[in-house]
Amino acid sequence: MSAHETLAAQQALRSADIDAQVEALYTQLQATAVVRDQQGGHATAERQAIRDSGLLNLSIPKVWGGSGALWSDIYKAIRRLAEADSALAHVFAFHHLQVASIQQFGNAEQHARLLKATVEQQIFWGNALNPLDKRATVTECDGGFVLQGPKSYCSGSVGSDYLLASGWHAASQSAVVVVVPSTRQGVTIVADWDAFGQRQTDSGTVQFDQVQIRHDEVLQGPGVQRTPWATLRTQVSQLILTNLYLGLAQGAFDEARHQIQHHTRPSFFSTAASASQDPYVQHRIAELWLLIRPAVLVADDAARQLDTAWAVGPTLTAQQRGEVAIAVNEAKALAHKASLEVSSQFFELTGARASSQSLGLDRFWRNARVHTLHDPIDYKYRDLGRYLLDGQFPDPTPYS
Amino acid sequence: MSAHETLAAQQALRSADIDAQVEALYTQLQATAVVRDQQGGHATAERQAIRDSGLLNLSIPKVWGGSGALWSDIYKAIRRLAEADSALAHVFAFHHLQVASIQQFGNAEQHARLLKATVEQQIFWGNALNPLDKRATVTECDGGFVLQGPKSYCSGSVGSDYLLASGWHAASQSAVVVVVPSTRQGVTIVADWDAFGQRQTDSGTVQFDQVQIRHDEVLQGPGVQRTPWATLRTQVSQLILTNLYLGLAQGAFDEARHQIQHHTRPSFFSTAASASQDPYVQHRIAELWLLIRPAVLVADDAARQLDTAWAVGPTLTAQQRGEVAIAVNEAKALAHKASLEVSSQFFELTGARASSQSLGLDRFWRNARVHTLHDPIDYKYRDLGRYLLDGQFPDPTPYS
Amino acid sequence: MSAHETLAAQQALRSADIDAQVEALYTQLQATAVVRDQQGGHATAERQAIRDSGLLNLSIPKVWGGSGALWSDIYKAIRRLAEADSALAHVFAFHHLQVASIQQFGNAEQHARLLKATVEQQIFWGNALNPLDKRATVTECDGGFVLQGPKSYCSGSVGSDYLLASGWHAASQSAVVVVVPSTRQGVTIVADWDAFGQRQTDSGTVQFDQVQIRHDEVLQGPGVQRTPWATLRTQVSQLILTNLYLGLAQGAFDEARHQIQHHTRPSFFSTAASASQDPYVQHRIAELWLLIRPAVLVADDAARQLDTAWAVGPTLTAQQRGEVAIAVNEAKALAHKASLEVSSQFFELTGARASSQSLGLDRFWRNARVHTLHDPIDYKYRDLGRYLLDGQFPDPTPYS
Amino acid sequence: MSAHETLAAQQALRSADIDAQVEALYTQLQATAVVRDQQGGHATAERQAIRDSGLLNLSIPKVWGGSGALWSDIYKAIRRLAEADSALAHVFAFHHLQVASIQQFGNAEQHARLLKATVEQQIFWGNALNPLDKRATVTECDGGFVLQGPKSYCSGSVGSDYLLASGWHAASQSAVVVVVPSTRQGVTIVADWDAFGQRQTDSGTVQFDQVQIRHDEVLQGPGVQRTPWATLRTQVSQLILTNLYLGLAQGAFDEARHQIQHHTRPSFFSTAASASQDPYVQHRIAELWLLIRPAVLVADDAARQLDTAWAVGPTLTAQQRGEVAIAVNEAKALAHKASLEVSSQFFELTGARASSQSLGLDRFWRNARVHTLHDPIDYKYRDLGRYLLDGQFPDPTPYS
Repeated sequence: MSAHETLAAQQALRSADIDAQVEALYTQLQATAVVRDQQGGHATAERQAIRDSGLLNLSIPKVWGGSGALWSDIYKAIRRLAEADSALAHVFAFHHLQVASIQQFGNAEQHARLLKATVEQQIFWGNALNPLDKRATVTECDGGFVLQGPKSYCSGSVGSDYLLASGWHAASQSAVVVVVPSTRQGVTIVADWDAFGQRQTDSGTVQFDQVQIRHDEVLQGPGVQRTPWATLRTQVSQLILTNLYLGLAQGAFDEARHQIQHHTRPSFFSTAASASQDPYVQHRIAELWLLIRPAVLVADDAARQLDTAWAVGPTLTAQQRGEVAIAVNEAKALAHKASLEVSSQFFELTGARASSQSLGLDRFWRNARVHTLHDPIDYKYRDLGRYLLDGQFPDPTPYS
Repeated sequence: MSAHETLAAQQALRSADIDAQVEALYTQLQATAVVRDQQGGHATAERQAIRDSGLLNLSIPKVWGGSGALWSDIYKAIRRLAEADSALAHVFAFHHLQVASIQQFGNAEQHARLLKATVEQQIFWGNALNPLDKRATVTECDGGFVLQGPKSYCSGSVGSDYLLASGWHAASQSAVVVVVPSTRQGVTIVADWDAFGQRQTDSGTVQFDQVQIRHDEVLQGPGVQRTPWATLRTQVSQLILTNLYLGLAQGAFDEARHQIQHHTRPSFFSTAASASQDPYVQHRIAELWLLIRPAVLVADDAARQLDTAWAVGPTLTAQQRGEVAIAVNEAKALAHKASLEVSSQFFELTGARASSQSLGLDRFWRNARVHTLHDPIDYKYRDLGRYLLDGQFPDPTPYS
Repeated sequence: MSAHETLAAQQALRSADIDAQVEALYTQLQATAVVRDQQGGHATAERQAIRDSGLLNLSIPKVWGGSGALWSDIYKAIRRLAEADSALAHVFAFHHLQVASIQQFGNAEQHARLLKATVEQQIFWGNALNPLDKRATVTECDGGFVLQGPKSYCSGSVGSDYLLASGWHAASQSAVVVVVPSTRQGVTIVADWDAFGQRQTDSGTVQFDQVQIRHDEVLQGPGVQRTPWATLRTQVSQLILTNLYLGLAQGAFDEARHQIQHHTRPSFFSTAASASQDPYVQHRIAELWLLIRPAVLVADDAARQLDTAWAVGPTLTAQQRGEVAIAVNEAKALAHKASLEVSSQFFELTGARASSQSLGLDRFWRNARVHTLHDPIDYKYRDLGRYLLDGQFPDPTPYS
Repeated sequence: MSAHETLAAQQALRSADIDAQVEALYTQLQATAVVRDQQGGHATAERQAIRDSGLLNLSIPKVWGGSGALWSDIYKAIRRLAEADSALAHVFAFHHLQVASIQQFGNAEQHARLLKATVEQQIFWGNALNPLDKRATVTECDGGFVLQGPKSYCSGSVGSDYLLASGWHAASQSAVVVVVPSTRQGVTIVADWDAFGQRQTDSGTVQFDQVQIRHDEVLQGPGVQRTPWATLRTQVSQLILTNLYLGLAQGAFDEARHQIQHHTRPSFFSTAASASQDPYVQHRIAELWLLIRPAVLVADDAARQLDTAWAVGPTLTAQQRGEVAIAVNEAKALAHKASLEVSSQFFELTGARASSQSLGLDRFWRNARVHTLHDPIDYKYRDLGRYLLDGQFPDPTPYS
């Protein structure tokens, strides 16, 4: 058996349990998704439901009390939740991204302490790492560092227990990565996210005002050169986005199917007995499906490659990292397109009544449109094309 | 000079004036479009501004005190207004559709009386003609007819002065078309439109409760067979939709250009000095433009054909009507696609910051998506293909 | 391990050998593909090379002396050969289709006799089953049947040793399927295939003139109702086409890459140091690749499903057959598009010099264009859409 | 009346005559187009038929005995001929490009002499100006210049009477443009064009071996800076390509329609009584049509702009030239796409029988594919996008 098959066989034993938890959480999110999208703001009850589900432990290795799930399985959970609510699914997923980051950037003591604490205290992690915003700085002080300045677009920060944060360290011209409790003195989280989609991602601005950071809270100190394995964080992240997009596409598709099957009347011009028997409805829904299904296969294949690379650990080579990066790049490009096309075009099938705000069916496009702006699609194609022609892997960056 | 050229030459004399009025109204609508889209509901002040602009007279022949504008010019006005606010532009355009209908269905006495009154009293006409909703009925009574029952999706009904309404006449198995003051006893207009786009189109449900209709208020009596010229109402209407879609596409395009020129930063990956110099930004904006520009030329060509057919009047043949119908069909199919693609894709160019709700840039897609559901695009292609292969013109229906 | 994983593990032992044989044959076909495409006609030497490769035994179970390869592996071989020469790959693949048909339609004695003979005598099977051409008839006679009339579009018939043929049996209103040596008295094979692509597929017309068929040559007698497993022949066939299309797409892609890397100069307008560094070249080649790669994953997934269903044998249910049919439908629709788009668009990347006839690079489009006309793509979408909406599996037909 | 309307009114008087000549030539070319495409080589009889038609005079001003046709009308002629035979239409069109060049680059004496001679001697002009091939050089000598070296891709050179040629003048680092009889000593025209499409364009290599050029044969001497009006030659040329592409698209479309109407049988799966009544056939042919029709309107609009700019003459400003360049750019991009898509996709409608070589229907794609490689489409989009964003007109080059 291949490395991945071995991993997969282990995993099969426990995925049934995970599936049941995911389905329960899906149902809970689905019930109020339309209303909460319209309200925006912080979803207190649903954030708690995620905590209560136990699924925050998915990415934590068994040795620290977690589920030790494969990324493949975590992505399926993310995708499923995103079918109902891609904002909460994002917050959920980004918790796991921070858990991954602790494993990638931290030392053994930090792994033990932080991951055990995450399980025991049901810690919900938020993100304060936006690499494009370099206003937050880190400077040495007695006993550690001081973090100062704002960080924007911090997904999951509102309502978080702990943050993974980065600050610019001028002396070494590098970013320092730290963990910090969200309630620490000097930390203010401003709920200022106002995009027209992904409204409940709690993507606030975190203001750090002379925040003290202890040495044991520093995951990546000044001037540290990341290994290929550590830079794999980007692939963990990009594949989160990929699966959120696919969940959005699938969610929109399922709603379209439901409308056609139960509510849509055949067109004025159609001779079909029902909307689902109209030749053009049949043709178009197949076209939409053929945007989703291949993208899912490519995403699942990329997840398997990531699982294998992740299992290699710090000895991962740049070449191995590059191959995963290309697989993820392909998946993300396809998912990007699927989410936008399906969420916009399905209305051709469902007819005018599906545009009622009470159904909230525009949220799929709004969520997909906002979330696919995370990083520009054209440079995904550029990176892929460059690899295909010159064999050059994508530069390890926060986006590739 | 061709018939259309003669018409065009006449028109040139006065279009400068019209243009100035349209620009003033455009500016006024633009100023509050984002806020009003978020509020929804009835735009009292803007409806009054439309009245005050004098542009409600555009489609009224000079002999009755109107501007006697060509449809070509009216469509340009509609398109321009839709760049700022496609909901109000729709209400404005549907007023002119009712004015057209009076000319097509009414007799000479009705033309004189209703059109003069429209000018003199600044009447704003609303629509209560939804042909798919046959619940409203018309029955004979002393002195005329009684109108009874609801009519849904009545664009511009809320806040209207007069309605053009239709009711189903069971005895003759035909629709009867009447005019009725919006304030007449028994008329209730319910503002129940709740779509996620085109939110201020005042497309309520009109409830007729034993409403008395005088004989001289009947434009089209029971059992009347419409002439090809009378059925040209559908082309007037479909070309309204076409130009609203094009206005939406152009409005979105202009916002995208503005963002790129003034706010968008080059991508993290780009080596360009500004977003507008990025090779992919340049390529994509050209692609979007090449959806709009040809559609505009085809729409303008269709409008010229409509002008010519309109000028023929009641002797218009089925063949002549059919040719206009094909030209309009082509234009609408192209405009449909342009509005959806441009309004969704332009965000690839503007980057994430353009997704802030404060900018309201999602309204173009929401408006385009809701409005393009008016009638199904696939049967536009069916009708066009049938004509191309078998020479069969579209059946004269409320949608073709 | 799943059923397919068990199959796959067995298979892994021998695929290295198969791969080497396929590569050798690929190299041989590639060497003369351009010239032979221009000549058309029968490729005597290459047909013999296929015989000599031993690969005609791939689909024959081990018990009869064959390789017992999985369909998954046979499809990979077909795809690889099609990268060089999709016409000969088609002839090769259709041999295996006939071998499959013997297993599906024949009885145990026929399996033993015909499959052993195929191995021992290196029999190359041709097709004479075109279900749309019902001119060839079968009637009872002493000792068996008489086959009479023409059969068109018989792939691989020219140069074949044996034919699998069908004739219409009027009395039972059903097709009878037989095997017949290509040299039997009354069999005339006319090399009349003159399409502009797939020129060496030996797809002649077979004229049967009072051809005697013994009872033991009848695989499927009059009035036999095929089991779901027997109708799986269509999926074997449709997945052959799918993989031929993908081989064409990949072959075109590889040629494009080679041209760009070695011959294409940067555009007059480009500032790039080489064609492969031009931003638009990089972008477009990625777009083309993203048509191929997902289609390959979907095709491979469908092949795995077919392997599993094939292993079930005659007890396969209609439901199981239907699921395979949907998987194959999806794969074929994607491969259809990939082959046409890649083979036409790659010239944008390679520039004008790649249009020299000496390179023969137009053959990919010509081959793809001709071969994708096998059965209409729109009804693939129809079938898929119907399934997605109503859960109805494709009707078992020669094309679905 | 606008400038263009004045021109158009004049023109209307004579276009009926031109139309009749064009139709006669179209019919003649159409009769043998399939056979000649398969043969390739020089079309002696058809080149003579073009001479005999009198249409070589179209672009020559009346003052010199020509027809003085507008470019708008010349393009319509080119487009019509390209529907039948885009290779001969190209040769025909490039004659007019050389006639235009004489007007743009030559002095009054040269105009009189060369244009009168063209009419009187039925001179057929060929092109030897390929700006990417700088191997041919020009150096001063007694009495004029010496032209030395090869020039590749010389459209219409084989069988020409005169060539418009350019050579690189090293001293001034500029191109010198001359006219030279094709039969002059030292001129050798090699028929080495071997592309898989546009096979009869006579695009040979011209070898100049110490060819003497008199002063009065120099249209553009060393170091001359072209005026905006002179650089308009590129727009004349690019709009020729545009209309050839559109003729190809229309020709393919008409063949498809003919096949569907007369030969194609409904799909195996279709319930339609004829192929033309199949819902998917109707839909797809409309989609193809909607690639052609808007592109034609945009091309016609660009031609009108070119006519107006052409009429301005040498005082044309860079701004005016730039506006024409953008209009032509838009038209060419749309025509490029239309020709490729229609010529490849129409086979989905016509079915497999349309792939017979006897019908020669692949020639539309082959011709479109080869001809659209003239200059890269992506930089058309780049130029257009740059203009839309920064207002920068395309640089005047041989391709923009």
